[in-house]
Amino acid sequence: MNRKRLKKVIDQMQKEGLSQILVTAAPSVYYLTGIWVEPFERMFALYLRDDGTAKLFGNELFCLRPQEGLELILHKDGENPVAGLSAALRPGKIGIDKTWKAGFLIGLLQSRSDLTPVEGSAPVDLARMRKDEEEIEAMRHASRINDRVMAAAVGMVREGARENEIALAVQNLYAQNGGDHSPEIEIASFGANAADPHHEPSDTVLKDGDCVVLDLFNPIRRYWCDMTRTVFFRSAGARQREVYDAVKRANLAAETFIRPGVPMSEIDRAARSVLEQAGYGKYFTHRLGHGCGLDCHESPDNGPSCGVIARPGMVFSVEPGAYLPGEFGVRIEDLVLVTDSGCEVLNRYTKDLTVIS
Amino acid sequence: MNRKRLKKVIDQMQKEGLSQILVTAAPSVYYLTGIWVEPFERMFALYLRDDGTAKLFGNELFCLRPQEGLELILHKDGENPVAGLSAALRPGKIGIDKTWKAGFLIGLLQSRSDLTPVEGSAPVDLARMRKDEEEIEAMRHASRINDRVMAAAVGMVREGARENEIALAVQNLYAQNGGDHSPEIEIASFGANAADPHHEPSDTVLKDGDCVVLDLFNPIRRYWCDMTRTVFFRSAGARQREVYDAVKRANLAAETFIRPGVPMSEIDRAARSVLEQAGYGKYFTHRLGHGCGLDCHESPDNGPSCGVIARPGMVFSVEPGAYLPGEFGVRIEDLVLVTDSGCEVLNRYTKDLTVIS
Repeated sequence: MNRKRLKKVIDQMQKEGLSQILVTAAPSVYYLTGIWVEPFERMFALYLRDDGTAKLFGNELFCLRPQEGLELILHKDGENPVAGLSAALRPGKIGIDKTWKAGFLIGLLQSRSDLTPVEGSAPVDLARMRKDEEEIEAMRHASRINDRVMAAAVGMVREGARENEIALAVQNLYAQNGGDHSPEIEIASFGANAADPHHEPSDTVLKDGDCVVLDLFNPIRRYWCDMTRTVFFRSAGARQREVYDAVKRANLAAETFIRPGVPMSEIDRAARSVLEQAGYGKYFTHRLGHGCGLDCHESPDNGPSCGVIARPGMVFSVEPGAYLPGEFGVRIEDLVLVTDSGCEVLNRYTKDLTVIS
Repeated sequence: MNRKRLKKVIDQMQKEGLSQILVTAAPSVYYLTGIWVEPFERMFALYLRDDGTAKLFGNELFCLRPQEGLELILHKDGENPVAGLSAALRPGKIGIDKTWKAGFLIGLLQSRSDLTPVEGSAPVDLARMRKDEEEIEAMRHASRINDRVMAAAVGMVREGARENEIALAVQNLYAQNGGDHSPEIEIASFGANAADPHHEPSDTVLKDGDCVVLDLFNPIRRYWCDMTRTVFFRSAGARQREVYDAVKRANLAAETFIRPGVPMSEIDRAARSVLEQAGYGKYFTHRLGHGCGLDCHESPDNGPSCGVIARPGMVFSVEPGAYLPGEFGVRIEDLVLVTDSGCEVLNRYTKDLTVIS
């Protein structure tokens, strides 16, 4: 157990009025124990009490090893996976990780009608939101690799290129640069495909005048990098240039604005108002960004309705975009770290408008 | 909506006494609607009633398109994602998909105390368990590709090979053969690493006398293939040969035994008793296999406590193994299809003991 992180979590539990929580997301369990398990359909949960009690419940196939301050309770395939858990919990309110599988929660509640489940991810999510020194170094390292991968990916934008070919090459680049296997595929969207911010790479072939949105994200030693650049192939029309310029100014406006004490919602506003003034507000259809760390998407939810205040150690994305249906899309994304006095942009790859000839 | 599949699901709902269910797993929604969404942290749910009502709830960023017989109810980032759902449900019992995120379920129950949630994946899982013709063709196609990928992977077992290098090459082979991006990494385990059935590929270098467990699985046009072969590098010792022989006989005993009407638990027994008689029963630490289709692991849970009876159209893995801690491991896995009269083994790559020189 990482005692320093556990203390942060217990402090948050007390603030939230939670005396017991179930931590079940693999990255959250790893954050506290250094144990990474992909449980798939099997049951895996770390039970924490505000007195520091920590018990890890899992399938014996996970090959868990004991460690100081952490009791292991194992089950086998074919046994009721929540029986041990059910026997260990105190009656009353219990915080449940938001991503725990409903089947386990329903099973638990059927055997323990004296439990009152509430969403209880906040203690660990809020602790994870402010990275410690070791984590900040991991995030910087991941983004440095991403700068290199982006440079190589932009180099693949050439006659005859296909979206899925670039995406596959990018996966190999991560693997060759020490990246972990990613559960997700990167985004490489050409032309009108880029008007869907979540377009999956297809065998679409690059055409002259296409925008190319490269949204490259991957875990590296468990910590994620995430950066987007938009370049143009052979030419960029007047409207493409105008939209690009507005999105870039929105990105810079937000990054300039970031410092400790500023509400996340106002950071979103700083970017959004640039796009609104340029007449593209209605094409910016998503939040400004998301926290990033052991999950690619984690707290804070960097958008108009976010109640979080920026604090040193937070790492999140700043990714304004404009998506013109049937035409093209532009997104420019950096990861940023809130420092004691402002913000450190973790990505250094150029944001100047680039036309590949 | 695929009306034929919807009818199968509604029949199962009636058998289970469920008048309304929430289907939330991406493969299950795809099975019924042909719509594939990776919702990540966002809310996505298909609500079905036994009168055929079907409503799809999702974030507007998913770019969902309407279709006949399916109402779309969209929400935006920043809005309460379960508000629409909460307004649509009937009071009383509701079946909830076992993998739905607990955070959404807790949010729903807080606004609707008149709901009684029960685990409700069975109607779709049981429908999906028996593949229709289109699905059987997809499963055969995926396994034919897997035979080719396995042949290429075995070809990479040579002096100086590393586990993670083979795993990466295998990912590329799938991509080049029409495979989808896989959320998971294949298993390539050398020597003592193979004693952990879920070992993640590392930079371990191949040594003379190592066993090499290649567990290769990937979605191909959404349907998964999954096959394991174990080969030996340069030599196989007497104990390795003995264990290999026992695992192979266990695999064949199960496959020979499979026909409609046989309980899954007896198929597991057919394999397990071979290993027990050979003295390796205690090293076979997992169930015999798992259903396979739109998920790599789906119903039935092919193990000693499985209550399912084999029926035509079921596809599942037969993967006995023996894991000798600190020494080596052997697993031999095929996907099989239950036919009208017996079983069709979908993988054709040889199971003869192979020593790579």
